[in-house]
Amino acid sequence: MQYLEDLVVGSRQRFGSYAVTRDEVIAFASRYDPQPFHLSDEAAAQTHFGRLAASGWHTCAMAMAMVVENLKETGHAGLGSPGVDELRWLKPVYPGDTLHMENELLEVTPSRSRPDMGSFRMRSTVFNQHDEPVMRYISIALVKRRPA
Amino acid sequence: MQYLEDLVVGSRQRFGSYAVTRDEVIAFASRYDPQPFHLSDEAAAQTHFGRLAASGWHTCAMAMAMVVENLKETGHAGLGSPGVDELRWLKPVYPGDTLHMENELLEVTPSRSRPDMGSFRMRSTVFNQHDEPVMRYISIALVKRRPA
Repeated sequence: MQYLEDLVVGSRQRFGSYAVTRDEVIAFASRYDPQPFHLSDEAAAQTHFGRLAASGWHTCAMAMAMVVENLKETGHAGLGSPGVDELRWLKPVYPGDTLHMENELLEVTPSRSRPDMGSFRMRSTVFNQHDEPVMRYISIALVKRRPA
Repeated sequence: MQYLEDLVVGSRQRFGSYAVTRDEVIAFASRYDPQPFHLSDEAAAQTHFGRLAASGWHTCAMAMAMVVENLKETGHAGLGSPGVDELRWLKPVYPGDTLHMENELLEVTPSRSRPDMGSFRMRSTVFNQHDEPVMRYISIALVKRRPA
């Protein structure tokens, strides 16, 4: 179990492998982001996407799946997240892509009001199989301090 | 069709109605965010959520569903989004909640390099049925200029 005291500013970790399928891209978009370029190659061909591309929110969801899978392995005493800053969709994500991630710990801050917890800021980057960054964001997360 | 020239800084719009179901919360979380508090009341009872709560990324997806539904009605010449700033999960979203949204247009900027397009920044707030804000973010979007 990783507590606030175990987190090292500047540390980086690469992890995850997520195969993006056509069926999943269309299923997610049909329910949550039914814009034409997320539903068919024909419609996407008329845009900068060029061909069917995943919803940006779907890429967020796939990244979260990798993060949670990774937490199961390393484990940290997480207490949820108040939010995300500077989320950027840098390149389209296409069916057939395989994604992975890198996290870089930017900042660790003990809480002033709650002696049992603190927060950290982490830059997460999602890459495709060509090692091109496709999405980047800074997440804020709450974490327990090591019990005295 | 709404072009850049039709967008009025400071204008606000309320729209959407999304009924959050227990089945959908669990289905989304099982696939993309299988943390215990997004999967069962029992696990959530031990956290600040109190009971089963939707993944924050699921709330993003549900908001996008309302945005796209609303775009179908008002229509704008959208060219996609480079990203989102200051995304904050303000309160838990629970099964049984019904969500709606408010958008406020913050800024409209013609492109310096592309005379046929521009961008805008918009603050989106998602509310529950008690009119409590549960999520807020600033989206950046690209839009066509009115053809000359």
